Amino acid sequence: MTPDRTKQSVAHPHEAQPAPFPASRKVYVTGSRPDLRVPFREISLSPTRRADGSEQPNPPVRVYDTSGPYTDDVPHRNLSEGLRPNRLSWILERGDTEVSDASCSVPADEAHAFPAKRTRYRAKPGRNVTQMHYARRGIITPEMEYAAIRENVSPEFVRDEIARGRAILPANINHPESEPMVIGRNFLVKINANIGNSAVVSSIEAEVEKMRWAIRWGADTIMDLSTGKHIHATREWILRNSPVPVGTVPLYQALEKVGGRPEELTWELYRDTLIEQAEQGVDYFTIHAGVRLAYIPLTVNRTTGIVSRGGSIMAAWCLAHHRENFLYTHFEEICEIMKAYDVCFSLGDGLRPGSIADANDEAQFAELETLGELTEIAWRHDVQVMIEGPGHVPMHLIKENVDRQMQVCKEAPFYTLGPLTTDIAPGYDHITSAIGAAMIGAYGTAMLCYVTPKEHLGLPDREDVRAGVIAYKIAAHAADLAKGHPGAADRDNALSKARFEFRWNDQFNLSLDPERAREYHDETLPAEAAKTAHFCSMCGPKFCSMRISHELRDQAAASEQAALGMAAKAAEFRESGGKLYS
Amino acid sequence: MTPDRTKQSVAHPHEAQPAPFPASRKVYVTGSRPDLRVPFREISLSPTRRADGSEQPNPPVRVYDTSGPYTDDVPHRNLSEGLRPNRLSWILERGDTEVSDASCSVPADEAHAFPAKRTRYRAKPGRNVTQMHYARRGIITPEMEYAAIRENVSPEFVRDEIARGRAILPANINHPESEPMVIGRNFLVKINANIGNSAVVSSIEAEVEKMRWAIRWGADTIMDLSTGKHIHATREWILRNSPVPVGTVPLYQALEKVGGRPEELTWELYRDTLIEQAEQGVDYFTIHAGVRLAYIPLTVNRTTGIVSRGGSIMAAWCLAHHRENFLYTHFEEICEIMKAYDVCFSLGDGLRPGSIADANDEAQFAELETLGELTEIAWRHDVQVMIEGPGHVPMHLIKENVDRQMQVCKEAPFYTLGPLTTDIAPGYDHITSAIGAAMIGAYGTAMLCYVTPKEHLGLPDREDVRAGVIAYKIAAHAADLAKGHPGAADRDNALSKARFEFRWNDQFNLSLDPERAREYHDETLPAEAAKTAHFCSMCGPKFCSMRISHELRDQAAASEQAALGMAAKAAEFRESGGKLYS
Repeated sequence: MTPDRTKQSVAHPHEAQPAPFPASRKVYVTGSRPDLRVPFREISLSPTRRADGSEQPNPPVRVYDTSGPYTDDVPHRNLSEGLRPNRLSWILERGDTEVSDASCSVPADEAHAFPAKRTRYRAKPGRNVTQMHYARRGIITPEMEYAAIRENVSPEFVRDEIARGRAILPANINHPESEPMVIGRNFLVKINANIGNSAVVSSIEAEVEKMRWAIRWGADTIMDLSTGKHIHATREWILRNSPVPVGTVPLYQALEKVGGRPEELTWELYRDTLIEQAEQGVDYFTIHAGVRLAYIPLTVNRTTGIVSRGGSIMAAWCLAHHRENFLYTHFEEICEIMKAYDVCFSLGDGLRPGSIADANDEAQFAELETLGELTEIAWRHDVQVMIEGPGHVPMHLIKENVDRQMQVCKEAPFYTLGPLTTDIAPGYDHITSAIGAAMIGAYGTAMLCYVTPKEHLGLPDREDVRAGVIAYKIAAHAADLAKGHPGAADRDNALSKARFEFRWNDQFNLSLDPERAREYHDETLPAEAAKTAHFCSMCGPKFCSMRISHELRDQAAASEQAALGMAAKAAEFRESGGKLYS
Repeated sequence: MTPDRTKQSVAHPHEAQPAPFPASRKVYVTGSRPDLRVPFREISLSPTRRADGSEQPNPPVRVYDTSGPYTDDVPHRNLSEGLRPNRLSWILERGDTEVSDASCSVPADEAHAFPAKRTRYRAKPGRNVTQMHYARRGIITPEMEYAAIRENVSPEFVRDEIARGRAILPANINHPESEPMVIGRNFLVKINANIGNSAVVSSIEAEVEKMRWAIRWGADTIMDLSTGKHIHATREWILRNSPVPVGTVPLYQALEKVGGRPEELTWELYRDTLIEQAEQGVDYFTIHAGVRLAYIPLTVNRTTGIVSRGGSIMAAWCLAHHRENFLYTHFEEICEIMKAYDVCFSLGDGLRPGSIADANDEAQFAELETLGELTEIAWRHDVQVMIEGPGHVPMHLIKENVDRQMQVCKEAPFYTLGPLTTDIAPGYDHITSAIGAAMIGAYGTAMLCYVTPKEHLGLPDREDVRAGVIAYKIAAHAADLAKGHPGAADRDNALSKARFEFRWNDQFNLSLDPERAREYHDETLPAEAAKTAHFCSMCGPKFCSMRISHELRDQAAASEQAALGMAAKAAEFRESGGKLYS
């Protein structure tokens, strides 16, 4: 349809292996067993140069790393082979799975099929392979220990949070390539990046590249929302090469199977789609089981009606048949499928507000009540659950969303899209929503689904993905700081120290986007000498406050007496109320 | 130093007159006198097309307009002539001013001097020409009525807010070209854009273009922070062509006059600089009178010391002479100058935190106490005051800044820089700070000083100014929505209605940046037909939730009975607790 665009979306050779971040090296921390190796990125810093010419070393800074084997010393390159299935031995050790052949029934898409075939597993009859099931039996899995090391907390704490449903660890037994991570409000705030083609643009290569690009910038999970051609093959390529959990909305593929006619959807066809995707290794499913027939009339007078794709499809089915949502009526059977592969529920908010005008309305909160009801059902099956949230919400209505969700859904992790805090800035919705995302994260939301600058306008390309991920890493980190997450400020403090000491390269290297920071600085001062200059082009040499601050310190240091004198004066002034005028 | 860059910063011919916004026309509302004409931008919308083919017109949307005569039907073009001094007659009518010749003493910079000479005015001996002075005497000035019409409130309300010091109306009698506006927490949240050259880059033309560019995107005031060559001439060019209030930091020019050596600053030289700039028409001065000798030791152990340029300069002077800040000791004399021209104080936060680590510390709040003291002194002189605020502040510490400022400074308008909510994203600080700006605006901050993507890295160029202004228009508008400002949601609702009705052009035209919105959409669907298509490339035709929503509505409409049936069902479900499972 738009060849130029498609070409543009396809990975270029030089993109196939993005340059590693400067001054960074991949390090692995080994846990209680040799095959449990947890990745971090270590950023090395240059020493502080004192006025007397002496040097003081600055310790390297370790940061959480989502980039996977693509940033190893020997980077993974062969996409046709896929990543090493590191978790497979842990899964098989548990002895509660068996080989499945159901996937054979999936019509192979030879032209685009992923070449390397994988054995598919499912739980033995009557067994439950969810991390929640293990956690509730007091078992600390290698996955839990792995996530605990990443978060710098105890494995027992991770187990306990999963057991009580306040955190989830998405780890489908058929996605052994994944590096375990945990989503819950007592852990670092996570972000999800949506990728996937549409009927209009994109290609398999482009989507796999978007996945690798998204995790390079820090996406903790990705959702494949493909609705175009080769859905099964695209998903297989992504899963086999993704070190982060992958989520999907199975309804999209189901709708493709019936030619895009919602009324032709059936439970049997949907069920088979769930199994097909669970056997591929999808880690969480968005399931719009809360869009009940009874709630649809509540949306008729809205400004923007139903803006969730899945929500609108199920609403269309309900109306066409005048029957209750089959995802709701078959929910227990869905739970049986989820626990056979350990797929997490991401209970979709099909009636989320699509505009400021519709925020926190009756339709939205009616659905939330149902999601709370379904959460308890899933938990009875030891199936992990997170709850999806809005949408478009003005700032003063954001907190109510978190408070209600925690109460109604018994603290199951909240996973929100933004929210966008105004409707008037299409083209900048990564910013309108980063504001809402930072706030809702600080209030206790566990994962933030990114919004790119193309929201409402078109399918995001690579640069949009980068802009969206960085905006959301900012929101998530701002929330971690506000929540007082231990150690969250270490990177801020290291960067600010580098900034104050004019260690420009360290400032760039510690930032979320070192390339962009350096590029902006070098636009005006490209010379290497400027990388230690005590000013930048913003204020110029004479007006650099930090340079002057250093001179003040040197003066103070030079004259201990003066310093004491000043301190005394300071005390005296404060005692006297510090006023000249009265 | 960097010729390429300088060239890049200079206005190109095609930039000299930015294209008018699409479907927009400038309208003027006339007040109680024929020469009181208040500008708005009216955005016309296309009609709603109903399913039955009938059309329903959508009323045009009027928005606050800061762009000045550059967007009139006959746009102002001659920059060498300057804008028409619309306010001059109002000023002279008051009969409390006289012609001044002090400006003659300013050494003209012939090479770059502004060609058209202007008569300079000052208050007659013993008179006070501040808007606060008139307000306190019960006088509603044309300026107050003008601002009231812009804000859709009564002139008396504007007068009362100014009289009690809770709002300011920056309107130097020597800047008669300005279009009056009001800054206070009971009015729309305003944004400021910083421009100005540095010793490293930029030119007069470039700065004038940046001003016009900034107001086109919606800057309510601009600050000329020039520290490079031709400071006086640059400021004159900007003032004569600026329809928005202009602020400066006079200390920068004073420092230039002493070759950049803070210790050589004197009160007399600073005073003459104040008068020089007041006679040019600067509407507000940032004055760092709160950086007291006694507070400097409080900054010695900070992570980033003193990050305010003005603050560091005054601290250096205090230490060099071991004497109290001369701006503090001469504050009453400064008030005498301010009231002779109606220049507002923007009391500078010279000790604002420059990093998350230094937020809300003793140094910052010690200075705030002094700013509260100085506010009361200024008010005794009927001089208008706003208070500058941080800086770098994590989200959970933002509210304390507003609460303390309101209490200590008796509700004088708060004017904050961001704040940035994390230090780790240089290159994206328009986003890290838009989060803090939206929150602090919702808490009651009256004006937000923008931060561009180049913050900490270099001098912003045109595109950086655009990105910074849009990010801050978003933050200010999100705050207006959160504060429930009357009518604030009208534009959101009109845009969302257009979005839901697939009136793509209306959606673009109503957005803060119509060009960007259209550009993003057209990247994948450039055809004009797509401007009414019921989908975009994000989801493609089959998966557009809004399209499906419409079909649902049509069904509901088609079958009144069905709708009633659904409604009944809905009621029944809700009464029965709406559960299938129990």
